[in-house]
This record gives sequence, structure tokens and C-alpha cells, in this order.
Amino acid sequence: MSSRFQLAENRYGKTRVRLVKVTRHAHGNDMFEWNVRVLLRGDFETAHTEGDNSKILATDTMKNTVYYIAGRSKATSMEGYAKELIDFLLSRNPQVSSVEVHIESVLWKRLTVDGKPHPDSFMRGSDEHQTTTVERAQNGEFAVTSGLADLVIMKTANSAFTGYIKESLTSLKETTDRLFATSLSASWSYMSDDFNFNAERTKLREAMLKTFAGHTSLSVQQTLYAMAESALEAVPSVSEIELTMPNKHCILIDLARFGQENPNEIFVPTDEPSGFIQATVKRTA
Amino acid sequence: MSSRFQLAENRYGKTRVRLVKVTRHAHGNDMFEWNVRVLLRGDFETAHTEGDNSKILATDTMKNTVYYIAGRSKATSMEGYAKELIDFLLSRNPQVSSVEVHIESVLWKRLTVDGKPHPDSFMRGSDEHQTTTVERAQNGEFAVTSGLADLVIMKTANSAFTGYIKESLTSLKETTDRLFATSLSASWSYMSDDFNFNAERTKLREAMLKTFAGHTSLSVQQTLYAMAESALEAVPSVSEIELTMPNKHCILIDLARFGQENPNEIFVPTDEPSGFIQATVKRTA
Amino acid sequence: MSSRFQLAENRYGKTRVRLVKVTRHAHGNDMFEWNVRVLLRGDFETAHTEGDNSKILATDTMKNTVYYIAGRSKATSMEGYAKELIDFLLSRNPQVSSVEVHIESVLWKRLTVDGKPHPDSFMRGSDEHQTTTVERAQNGEFAVTSGLADLVIMKTANSAFTGYIKESLTSLKETTDRLFATSLSASWSYMSDDFNFNAERTKLREAMLKTFAGHTSLSVQQTLYAMAESALEAVPSVSEIELTMPNKHCILIDLARFGQENPNEIFVPTDEPSGFIQATVKRTA
Amino acid sequence: MSSRFQLAENRYGKTRVRLVKVTRHAHGNDMFEWNVRVLLRGDFETAHTEGDNSKILATDTMKNTVYYIAGRSKATSMEGYAKELIDFLLSRNPQVSSVEVHIESVLWKRLTVDGKPHPDSFMRGSDEHQTTTVERAQNGEFAVTSGLADLVIMKTANSAFTGYIKESLTSLKETTDRLFATSLSASWSYMSDDFNFNAERTKLREAMLKTFAGHTSLSVQQTLYAMAESALEAVPSVSEIELTMPNKHCILIDLARFGQENPNEIFVPTDEPSGFIQATVKRTA
Repeated sequence: MSSRFQLAENRYGKTRVRLVKVTRHAHGNDMFEWNVRVLLRGDFETAHTEGDNSKILATDTMKNTVYYIAGRSKATSMEGYAKELIDFLLSRNPQVSSVEVHIESVLWKRLTVDGKPHPDSFMRGSDEHQTTTVERAQNGEFAVTSGLADLVIMKTANSAFTGYIKESLTSLKETTDRLFATSLSASWSYMSDDFNFNAERTKLREAMLKTFAGHTSLSVQQTLYAMAESALEAVPSVSEIELTMPNKHCILIDLARFGQENPNEIFVPTDEPSGFIQATVKRTA
Repeated sequence: MSSRFQLAENRYGKTRVRLVKVTRHAHGNDMFEWNVRVLLRGDFETAHTEGDNSKILATDTMKNTVYYIAGRSKATSMEGYAKELIDFLLSRNPQVSSVEVHIESVLWKRLTVDGKPHPDSFMRGSDEHQTTTVERAQNGEFAVTSGLADLVIMKTANSAFTGYIKESLTSLKETTDRLFATSLSASWSYMSDDFNFNAERTKLREAMLKTFAGHTSLSVQQTLYAMAESALEAVPSVSEIELTMPNKHCILIDLARFGQENPNEIFVPTDEPSGFIQATVKRTA
Repeated sequence: MSSRFQLAENRYGKTRVRLVKVTRHAHGNDMFEWNVRVLLRGDFETAHTEGDNSKILATDTMKNTVYYIAGRSKATSMEGYAKELIDFLLSRNPQVSSVEVHIESVLWKRLTVDGKPHPDSFMRGSDEHQTTTVERAQNGEFAVTSGLADLVIMKTANSAFTGYIKESLTSLKETTDRLFATSLSASWSYMSDDFNFNAERTKLREAMLKTFAGHTSLSVQQTLYAMAESALEAVPSVSEIELTMPNKHCILIDLARFGQENPNEIFVPTDEPSGFIQATVKRTA
Repeated sequence: MSSRFQLAENRYGKTRVRLVKVTRHAHGNDMFEWNVRVLLRGDFETAHTEGDNSKILATDTMKNTVYYIAGRSKATSMEGYAKELIDFLLSRNPQVSSVEVHIESVLWKRLTVDGKPHPDSFMRGSDEHQTTTVERAQNGEFAVTSGLADLVIMKTANSAFTGYIKESLTSLKETTDRLFATSLSASWSYMSDDFNFNAERTKLREAMLKTFAGHTSLSVQQTLYAMAESALEAVPSVSEIELTMPNKHCILIDLARFGQENPNEIFVPTDEPSGFIQATVKRTA
């Protein structure tokens, strides 16, 4: 049977490897929480066709490797740690052609007590998480794509939506003053692999948020594009950026039915259906 | 058949009524997001036994009432709004014996741009939500129980667990320096119904967090109790408080197997199984 | 400080202890998956007030006990296993005044291959889960309350809702033919602790489903009550039953706006807001 | 600023458009529930760069179109309905270059009462859902990729994992008899757009499940490949198939510590970390 079919793409690895690292200083502790995924591509055809596991690095061993490298790493960014992990795996596994590491960091903030940062207590932040995907093939270069996801933001002013197509199935009313809420996800590609990734990330994120807040919006598309431009403007090390901005609709309730005005004050936030807007903006060649 | 069985407890209502309210000022906007549940008890026996809906206020009408009262209310706290909603429903529905309103508020923070609070843009905070449950019977008093839930916090120092029972099924090792992470939920009962609920809430929350951060913990039980004491100390208007503190275990990874030290630095955070600690502390009579 | 406050209710334990048990026979395997919670009440005051852990059975030890008892138990029902676990914990821990065990079973079905049940392969069923809560105090009797949850069902005929209160905030239209979808949860109390719990459970569940399907419904309340009556009718070992039936609204779409009829065919299922109906029915004394 | 940057990829649309359709016959009803996503690509540059909405079909209008086409469609498969929806959108919107429709169907089963199928009552099935993604450009051909997701299955026999690489970070023990649980997702590409899609789907699914149950597994990779071969064997209309089989590990509990045997009976099912195995198998050219 097997001669009629063939293995095309394949990859395998370990996902949801969770990691808390506490760094202990004389004056207190730092900590972070990561969720790591490791994926390998390589010469695994006989594993599929014959059940030959002799070239298979067990995913349990990958998990151990994640913790082992975390224990000895001095990297201060997810990107830096990912590069170390990839180098370690490629050097010990010649049967592997490329390694991809994806990391999501969970937001923790230092607790403030009596107006001062506490040395060793922390609080979970929002569901926003920072991400990176780093990949390298044997003898290749690192490709670093970082991002953020699930950053939920809302403008309560300066957002309109008018002038769109009116046709027989149109029921939406034009508005010059709507709520504009979205769950921002972004990913951006670095031009090379050696930046202060944490600093670049901070600049990108602040540029996008500043533009979101300040923009006089005629549509999600327009605001998304302006945010992408701001990001590329702020961080020359990035070649292109993709933004995804689902529209988390907040619907103005009709209270006139009940003899009461609703001067753009009371809304129903809804999860579904949801608008979906996505675009990539890049530097002009 | 029906004479052999009888209706005991019954209640009904509307849950997950979501509401965003934007208040517009000359200098910018305020906003909040609430999730409201309304439950009625009353004379609904014939609805159950005969399908007689003549005393049934439709749950869809309750939903409309939530928005209608929100539109005209000047209340600045969930507790105050809940009282207005309950009074409105009781006064118009003599067949209803009591109304319970439960509200959860979603955390939104004002965006900071260039170091300054932005007038009309906001960001979702953590999954922590503030809650209240207010109940009143026809001609009765309000009972107000407020709280918070899903406030995830972690101590990376000053937490031990030793001296517990050792028996044939014990495998846990004693530790004088563990991570202590929990998802705090609390609910507290007010002595009457007329306080500055927002101010009391802030004081309670800060008292609990300060004690959590500062406590030299011998167990979750001991820290929980100290937090409850601090809360009652800080807010005399509260008669008792219940705290629930599931233990979100972070397990120290054994790297010695791989020839590497792990000086209390690398942990695996786990969601399950989970310790569960709950206690109520009240004022001595 | 402590003399002004006192410990009231308290309990602790382990939640989300997950367990798969495979029983191996000559002709194939049986398996089940449970999620177990163990909660203890007892003499734990000094643990809270002084950090004295000498009476504390570690929750990690409770987890080990869950697996240990599962390994040696011959019980064929969750209720039977819970009773063994409680007896074991009470007998070894005199400081414990009562133990409560709650179990949820996950639905797995045997795979059918070529029309025949397969000896050792299985498929996850729906999110419906069967539950039990068993409790006993030192020298007391077992209290057994079993149930089911998240059983999602829908009637596409024979469901009306008319005759409810019409007032100034009413906008719902009466209907004699709506979709009636709910996520049924039920819990029932047994009169004593020694039944064939699996057989009783099957009879109860089938009685409720048969009534749901066959009922000509004038309201959720009426159908709920009829289902509860059927359950009590079918299983004399049960003293009372509580049913919770949130209304998972399916809203008829107005296509007339677009020049097309919608003869009760196209609906929008919604998750929120949601009606909530709950009642307890018991045998007449 | 804008001349330095340019819009690359972009698409937008509506997601999570939920739909229940009830078809009413003399003898009873049929029903299905779908979750629809519509995405458009096209000439939307000025929307992004200038806020010009004149070529924008509002996502709210797309939602209306989903319901409108559902109301008049006679299609019996998701694939057939998706084709109608795409044709309608492309014909009315010349500014749109291509439309992609993705549908997930939710599993509902007819209720059985007294051993007979009930004419109009239904029960939610498992979380398994059937999917399709259909795409067409103006004047192009349909590309149809269908699939299924979240089909959770378990083998309790005939699964081994041995012979993998042993190195300094390996701690996994070899086993010739493990539990093999996975959440199968699959997607397959049809060679053209005119098949009895429902019949092909049934054959594919049964072929994969039969192979999963019957396979003597040396690894997830080997079983995955055998399942893909069976699928391609069973359905000649499919050119290639991608399978994703995360390893839902069930870990054998060590009860020997407590003086009790565990003859491959008691396991801890875990959600994380999780193995991840993915491969595409295609016909040989």
C-alpha cells in the first residue's frame, strides 16, 4: 500500500511546557512565567512508515531540555532563550533539519504595597501575552518573529463608520460616534537576530497603543493601518508587521422603546458574531 | 400524579446580562463593564404545575429592566445600582417575594499615553473581578454581600510548609522556601446597606494584599486567616469574610538528574490537581 | 488581634484529582475517567491561628489516597468508591470531623468498528458528566447526592410561551412554536446509602429525557416540573430532586426585511444573556 | 509617512456567525448547527490608507447574507452551502477578489426514547466538529478543504513506545503497553468541487477510526501515517490529508511506593505538557 502514498510535510514536538523562573537577588526576586512549544522537522520518514524510533528524540526529552536550558541560561529575553534552546537541540541532533521554538509569556506584575514595589510578591496581569517564534535550520540563520496577543482595548470616542456599501441585505446604521473595542494581536519580523528584543517590544507596543488612543478613526481598517505604520516608524529593526483586530462589537441599546433616552451611554458588549480585520504592512522596497 | 409531589425551592431569572456604561464629561469619558444576574423568588407554583404564566415576568423583560435602570441610575457602585434594580422590580411585581441581584464587574484601566491618562481610551485589566450580591424581600432589609474573585497572586519568598502529618501515603517533602501562588476569592457581608461601598472595597482589598505580601507563611491556612483578620480590622462595616485560596502549585524541577543545580529557581506551574483552602472569619460576639 | 475575631466555617482538601482506571479482561478492557475532589472539616483552628500543621493531612497525601483507594477498590459506582475513600480517611484521621467526596465522571464510549463494539478503543462523548457528592461525619451516616450536569438538549416542536405579564418594559413576543434548548443539570438525594446507584441513575436520566422529549411545553418551568415528577416516579429511592435548566435562547431571524420568508427555520443560537430556571421537587410528606 | 510603507496581505470579514436550521417534515424535524466565518480579499487599499469605505461591504451585511442564503439554500452539505454563499458574494461585489468561507458544525444527535428515534428532540454530541474551508477567486475554481477537529480517542491496548534516542536528558521509560489518547484533527483536500461531501466525510472518518482502533502502534507517528493511508485508500476523491494528533498523556501512577501493585490500571490523565505530532500524506505522483 505504501508505494501509492508518501509522507509530505511533518513535524512533531512538545507543547504547553510551562515554566516559572525566579531569580533571587539580595534586595528581592524577579520572576517570569513562560509557555514553551518546541517543534522539530527532519528525517523522520521511517518513524512514520516503519515504526522505527531510532531517530526520534522523545517529546518528554524535549520537555526536560526546556527546563535544563532555562536553568543554565542567562538570557533576559524570550528570543535569546529560544536561540539557545534551538542551538542546543540542533547540535545534538543531526537528524533534525530545523527547530522552531514558540514562547508565550504570561503577564505578572510586581505587587505595590503602601505605594512601594514589593520585593518578592506578584500579581497576574491581563490576558495579554507576549510571544516569539524563532526558527533555525542546520547551518541556517535565525528567523525571529515576535508579537503580542489578546491585548483588549477600547476607544469610547473618535470612532465613526460611514460611507460603506448599502445594498439589499444592509441593515447596519451609519454612526459617527461608536465604541471601538478590539483584542489586538500583532506579530512582527526582525531583520536579523541580534537586537535588544525587550526594548524593541516595548517601543512597538507603546507606538501602537498611542496611535490607537489618538486616532480619529473612520474604520477599523484605517486605525489598524495607522497603528502598523507607527510601529514600523518606531522600530527600524522590523521589516513588516501583521495586525489582527477582531471587532468586539458594543451595541447601543434602544431605550426609546421604553420612553427613555440613551445618549450614547448604555451598550451591550457581545462576543459573537465578531468582525475580523487583518492586514500586513511592510516597508517599501 | 401531582398530589404525591410538591414544589419546594424555586427561583428563576436572567443571567449573563452584559452592560457597558460610558459616562461622558467635558474632559473625557468614564466607563465600566458589568455582568448582571437577576433572580426572583415568589408565587410561581401554578407556572410549574399548570403552565399558568400569568404571574411570570419574562426573563427578557428582566434584561430590558437591567438596561432601563442602568440608563437612569446615578449610582456609582454596583451595590447602589443593585438596590435600585431590586426596589424597582419588587414595587412592580407583588407576586415576587424576593429579588437577588448579582453583579460582576470586569476590570478596565484607563490607557496611559506619554505618561498621562488618556481621556477616552481603555485597556482590559486582569481576570480579577469585583462582585456583589444584594437581596431583599418585600418589606425586608437589604442584605449586601460583596467580594472579589480570581485575583491571582504569588509569593516567591517567606512561605514554608512543614510539620504536617507523615503517614504511609505521604510523599510530599517538607519545604521552608516554596512558591505560594493562589487565585484569591473573597466575599464579605456588610452590617447594613448604606456605606461608600467602593471605598470599603478598596480598603479591604489593599489590606488583604498587604498581608499576603508581608506574611511569613507557615501554611495557606495561616496566611488566609491573617488576611481575613486584616480585612476585618481595616473595615469595621463588615461582619464576616470568607476567603477561598486554591493552591496553584509550582513544583520545583529536579535538575540534579541531569547534573545541574536548581537553587529554587526553575518551577513547573500546574493547574491540576489543586489544593483548596476555604475559611470564614467573623467578629467575636 | 486574634481575640476580636474567630474562625467560623473552614474546610480544605484537594480538587481536580484526575483518574483513569482501565480494567483488563480476557476479551478486552473497560475504562472510566473521574475527576475527584476531597474536602475535610475538623479541628484545624491552630493551623489557622498559629501555623501549627500537626493535625494537617497534606492535600498531596489526599491525592495519593485517591489513587491508592482506586487501585484496590472493587466498587463499580462513583458512589461506592466515594464511600470507601471517606471511610479510609475518617478511620485514619480522628482530627477530621467529616469528609466530603465529590466526583465527576467524563463520558467515554466504546468505539464501534464495522458495526461491532471494539474491545479496547474508546471515544470521548459529550460534555455531559455524571456526578456524586457523598459526605459522612465520624460515627455518622452517609449522605449521598448524585446528579448530572451539562446535558444539552433541544426540542424543535411543542414548545410555547404565552400569557406572561405585559408591562412597559416588555418587548418579547408571544410564541406558540419556539425552539427550547437547555443545558440540564440535576441533583437528587438518596434516602439511604445502599442502592445500585448506576441502575438508579440510568432510570432517572431516561425518565427525564423521555418527559423532555414528549412534553407539550407551556414554559420551561412547566417542563422542568414534569421532568422532576417523572424522575421521582421512576426512582422511589430518591427523596427529592433539583433541576436547573438555563434557557439557551435560539432567536428566529427576521428575513422579511430582506424580502424572504423564514417559516420557523433559521435561528441564531446565543449563549448570553441566558434565562435561568431552577426548582426542587420533593415527595409529599 | 505613507510612502515609506505599503499594505501587503489583507483580509476581513465576519467570524462566529452561528446558525441553527430546522427543516420541518410531516413526520418530524431535522436540524443542524453551524458556526460560519466569511473572509474577503480584494481592493481595499484606500480603506486602509484613507478611511474610504466606499468599497467596504460591512461585516454586518455579511452576517445578514449568511442567514439569507441559509434561508433559501437547498444544500445538504456545508461544502454545498459554502459554494452558494461564495458565488452570491462574488457576483454582487466586483471589488472582492476572493471569498473564503469556513464552517464548523456542532454535533447534535437525535434523542432516542423507548428505543426509537424521537421526531423532534435532540441532544448535543461530543466536542468533535466537522469543518470545511471553501475558497474561490473571481472567475476561478473552488478549492475545497474539509476536515474534522477535536475527536478525542483512546486505545487501551496495543500501543508501545521503545527504541527512541537515549541521551543525557532522557528520563522517559520505554513501554510496550501504554495508553494512547489523542484529540484527532484532520483536513483533506478534494480534487474537485463536486462530490457527495457528506458521504465522503463519513467514509474518511470511519477509515481513520478503524485503523486507529486496530493498529498495533509502535509510535504516534506510525499510527498517524497508517490512519492517513487508510483515509486516502477509502476516498479516491481526496488528494492529500493532514493529521494532527496531540498526545494526551496518561501517566501510570507509582503505587509501589505505598506497597500496592498497579498492573497497568490506574493512570493520571494530563492536559499539559502535551506531545504534538503532525504530518501530511499525499498520493504519489
